[in-house]
Amino acid sequence: MERIESAENPKIKQAAALHMRKERERRGEFIAEGVRLTEEAAAASWPLLFCLVTEETLQNERVQAIVAVLEKKRCPVYIVSPTAYKKASATNTPQGILLAMKRETVPLSSLQTEGMQFLAVLDKIQDPGNAGTIIRTADAVGCTGIVALEGTVDLFSDKTVRSSMGSLFHLPIVARATHEDLFSYMRENRISCFASMLDKTAVSYFSVDYRQPVAVVFGNEGNGVSAEMGERMPHVYIPMVGKTESLNVGTAAAIILYEAFRQRYALGVCQQR
Amino acid sequence: MERIESAENPKIKQAAALHMRKERERRGEFIAEGVRLTEEAAAASWPLLFCLVTEETLQNERVQAIVAVLEKKRCPVYIVSPTAYKKASATNTPQGILLAMKRETVPLSSLQTEGMQFLAVLDKIQDPGNAGTIIRTADAVGCTGIVALEGTVDLFSDKTVRSSMGSLFHLPIVARATHEDLFSYMRENRISCFASMLDKTAVSYFSVDYRQPVAVVFGNEGNGVSAEMGERMPHVYIPMVGKTESLNVGTAAAIILYEAFRQRYALGVCQQR
Repeated sequence: MERIESAENPKIKQAAALHMRKERERRGEFIAEGVRLTEEAAAASWPLLFCLVTEETLQNERVQAIVAVLEKKRCPVYIVSPTAYKKASATNTPQGILLAMKRETVPLSSLQTEGMQFLAVLDKIQDPGNAGTIIRTADAVGCTGIVALEGTVDLFSDKTVRSSMGSLFHLPIVARATHEDLFSYMRENRISCFASMLDKTAVSYFSVDYRQPVAVVFGNEGNGVSAEMGERMPHVYIPMVGKTESLNVGTAAAIILYEAFRQRYALGVCQQR
Repeated sequence: MERIESAENPKIKQAAALHMRKERERRGEFIAEGVRLTEEAAAASWPLLFCLVTEETLQNERVQAIVAVLEKKRCPVYIVSPTAYKKASATNTPQGILLAMKRETVPLSSLQTEGMQFLAVLDKIQDPGNAGTIIRTADAVGCTGIVALEGTVDLFSDKTVRSSMGSLFHLPIVARATHEDLFSYMRENRISCFASMLDKTAVSYFSVDYRQPVAVVFGNEGNGVSAEMGERMPHVYIPMVGKTESLNVGTAAAIILYEAFRQRYALGVCQQR
């Protein structure tokens, strides 16, 4: 393994640059940091660029196992000085290991079309933590893909990757789809769409039949699902009997996606992935 | 309204002290800060001590409405200088209005016993944000009470109060119950208990009948439900089909409590509160 001492080394600069959305998008690259995330990333099939690890972190047996997997995959591993690592890391409490990776997004057209599709759609979700939480739940319920519409927070930001707890690497990700593309795709593939929004026409989320190819749309934290989406599909809402006004969108997504899961589970379609 | 200029004023010192758990417990008092929370608190029936508001915040019409309610309730309102307010506030971005309140907890024995009880039990939950989120969801699904077992994070910390979004004021709170007291209460009142935990004996959370008096126990973030609780009740788990290892306890609680809600809703028992 090569060593990197200087914070001015190009690899260090590259990793540091990837904490900025502009650079991530220009290069099509991002960072997964920490033991758990690098472990998930090493086990996934996404293209790896390089790994930075500190001498101290490399004492950890779990980290040694990760490094062994990376070397088998011919991903370069650099042992870096604490100063250099600190510059490469985004967190205040650097975890001593990070991976620079290529993002692997897919076009809508390459999503699975046979069987019982189950898509979670993010419509201008702004909080990276909420986006990551929804991806994690979507993974848990066996969604066949995540679609992030234009205007949604970057799914490859440090915080989204971290909140997804590695689930980002487990299912196909469509980034920056347009409303029109999504509608055409849904129509062609006969996928029923539901928007999570409360208005006069909305029915309770548990009165809907999810035992069919479905997509559920979750909207912006402040403004909800956008008008262009909302006007073209039925609405579902989560009834509340207390004096609560609303639920966090990550919580709302968990409730609705798990009701879909519950219904589909009996049909055995949740094991399809 | 009286004015307070000095950060050394006893009311300011009292408010500042209430950001420490020890002081909150010694005095049986706590702080609700911000427009939304003070609005909820003013509308609730909990005993109020005093309100601190800055001149600037008092320009807001919504704040003026809150102050009017407080004055009607004979709660003293003080206009405080920005410096004094900053000392009284816990947040880095002080919101200009806070209420010092008496906590209103109840003993187990005073919880509603007729009808279809629905309790959420917190068993050593450590994260204040998770505790607040569970209280908020419990409010939304019409829980008839919250029981925090000994060893659970303080439900009256700034962060729990804030994450509960005011739901804390909406339902009876039993703080620091012992396992034994809870078991006796459940037995006497024929309440079925379920622990949210994954092991060989656990059944999926949606295979359980919640159309009866029930309590669901949610455990510690790292260690789950404690052994003393777990060994005395059936276990429910949330099936996951992806590679996800676990869900955040706040999310898990939302999924389980909403499944109970869905089942009870049809019976019309969710509107009982």
